[in-house]
Amino acid sequence: MTQHTVEKTSVTLLGLGAMGTALARAWLAAGHPLTVWNRTPARAAVLAAEGAGVADSAVEAVAANTLIVACLLDDASVEEALAGTDLAGKDLVNLTTSTPAQARARAEWARERGARYLDGGIMAVPQMIGVPEAGGYAFYSGSPELFEQHQETLGVPAGTTYVGKDAGFAALHDVALLSAMYGMFAGAAHAFALIRKEDIDPTSLAPRLADWLVAMAPAVHQTADQLRSGDYTQGVTSNLAMQVAGTPTFLSTAEQQGVSTELLRPYFELMRRRLAEGSGEEDLTGVIDLLVH
Amino acid sequence: MTQHTVEKTSVTLLGLGAMGTALARAWLAAGHPLTVWNRTPARAAVLAAEGAGVADSAVEAVAANTLIVACLLDDASVEEALAGTDLAGKDLVNLTTSTPAQARARAEWARERGARYLDGGIMAVPQMIGVPEAGGYAFYSGSPELFEQHQETLGVPAGTTYVGKDAGFAALHDVALLSAMYGMFAGAAHAFALIRKEDIDPTSLAPRLADWLVAMAPAVHQTADQLRSGDYTQGVTSNLAMQVAGTPTFLSTAEQQGVSTELLRPYFELMRRRLAEGSGEEDLTGVIDLLVH
Ligand SMILES: NC(=O)c1ccc[n+]([C@@H]2O[C@H](COP(=O)([O-])OP(=O)(O)OC[C@H]3O[C@@H](n4cnc5c(N)ncnc54)[C@H](OP(=O)(O)O)[C@@H]3O)[C@@H](O)[C@H]2O)c1
Ligand SMILES: NC(=O)c1ccc[n+]([C@@H]2O[C@H](COP(=O)([O-])OP(=O)(O)OC[C@H]3O[C@@H](n4cnc5c(N)ncnc54)[C@H](OP(=O)(O)O)[C@@H]3O)[C@@H](O)[C@H]2O)c1
Repeated sequence: MTQHTVEKTSVTLLGLGAMGTALARAWLAAGHPLTVWNRTPARAAVLAAEGAGVADSAVEAVAANTLIVACLLDDASVEEALAGTDLAGKDLVNLTTSTPAQARARAEWARERGARYLDGGIMAVPQMIGVPEAGGYAFYSGSPELFEQHQETLGVPAGTTYVGKDAGFAALHDVALLSAMYGMFAGAAHAFALIRKEDIDPTSLAPRLADWLVAMAPAVHQTADQLRSGDYTQGVTSNLAMQVAGTPTFLSTAEQQGVSTELLRPYFELMRRRLAEGSGEEDLTGVIDLLVH
Repeated sequence: MTQHTVEKTSVTLLGLGAMGTALARAWLAAGHPLTVWNRTPARAAVLAAEGAGVADSAVEAVAANTLIVACLLDDASVEEALAGTDLAGKDLVNLTTSTPAQARARAEWARERGARYLDGGIMAVPQMIGVPEAGGYAFYSGSPELFEQHQETLGVPAGTTYVGKDAGFAALHDVALLSAMYGMFAGAAHAFALIRKEDIDPTSLAPRLADWLVAMAPAVHQTADQLRSGDYTQGVTSNLAMQVAGTPTFLSTAEQQGVSTELLRPYFELMRRRLAEGSGEEDLTGVIDLLVH
């Protein structure tokens, strides 16, 4: 029996906030040599005790390895932290939350400095990092060569989902999913508000609400099929005309329960506008057309 | 071996629209003797061929059985259809979508006419009726005696979930869950709008979006626990201050993608208002307080 010791890729990590610290621990636990740097040095001390090398400056940290991961507050802090570092020949992976435009500009900025660039968006809270069962995941986009070379290392904290060469696409997926989540949370907030004045325990509503949202989430597949075909009547079960006819029940129930309709009205208004265009036989998908200008 | 033939409860069903017809077929398939009536008689003919008795009038239909189920367009059509019928001693189950206030008034109206009353809200489309695997379900509230006596029969189309003696509670649960669903659909619409101008296939976004929404839906349990305890900082992972700090990324990404922010802004505005009250360490739950007046 031959035993192979596969050498794990060395990683430099810039930024030891809540997320950076979780990433650092995941790479250390997986046996990757790790060099860390944080603007406020105190946050690095605890990781030194766990086996990380601590760089005194971002310049030194970048010099230490080829694979450089940044997980800082925002795009401006990436600019500030990397100013003066030598990125030539480096593989820069930016896990800092950015807009797609910021990610694209940062990719160009890195290219000018001789680095390959990959942008990432982590769909998880720090508690889920390094815990595959927790179901967190991460989108990556940008240099396919960088991605292929480092996929295994990058996958340690939360897996990898590559979404395209355009460096802005990871951020776009990240923002799209989180925006949808806020919509769901807004809907759930309205639901809890509706029962506030009644003798109904919120913890008895919660499982029904969760089950219902889980059951309805797959409706996005039909939406996607309709967007692709351009036929928004495809497979319709409750058409727009029926659904608009039902909206007064939702609005007047909210009013009767003393609940503001501010979270419901904008979507209902778009449904009404789409119906007014003569799309009563369609699904709700036409609302998406009204959002894009 | 003794064979018991348990006699199935006879049902009168008023209303043979899309939903009423699906209910009729479910009861016929389960062996329940069924008398149907529909304002427009043509819709009853096909069910006669499938074994239903057809009444010539609502008066005759109500006279035929003790258990009377109404599944009509709206509360006004229930009033109209039942005018002149003799409800004394009847068990009236109203599956017509109503507001909680309408359901409560209808319960009182039925009581004055000597009937027991149960209100129901069906959380399913007609295609899911009689198909337990499809996961549809129905809320019931009102007379507990009526519910207990007829639970088995009522459970045939989509199961039963009893939510209280208050006749308005089924409608309230129904409206709460559907309102939450519209929030989720609004969020998903925004997500699809964000990728509209990019070379990203909506059918590649859909599974990621569905998985993410399914993973995030259980967050409502924590919301419910916080509402019950009154401590909105309990178990917080990303606090309100952090989340409000992230909102400009969502808004500017939408603007960069040419997408209206009208579906995002109302919830973000409530988050901002709650933060301004000094609740930065809390979860998002405080938004619910702002909705109720
Ligand atoms: N936490 C989450 O749940 C989560 C989830 C997904 C994605 N993310 C993203 O991950 C990134 C990091 O989040 P986090 O939770 O770790 O944030 P955090 O706890 O607030 O940490 C921010 C980090 O950025 C550093 N920093 C800020 N401004 C800097 C500057 N001008 N120069 C150098 N360093 C600077 C901070 O250094 P100091 O210690 O010196 O202040 C700290 O290391 C963010 O983009 C966030 O959106 C976070
Ligand atoms: N379809 C769904 O996906 C769904 C899901 C959950 C709940 N629901 C609820 O179930 C109920 C019925 O829905 P549906 O889909 O079956 O609706 P539908 O297909 O539009 O049928 C409406 C029914 O109401 C009858 N009706 C209307 N006005 C009437 C009046 N003034 N007097 C007597 N009968 C009258 C109609 O009779 P005619 O044939 O004579 O017009 C028809 O039988 C509604 O409250 C709906 O909100 C439906």
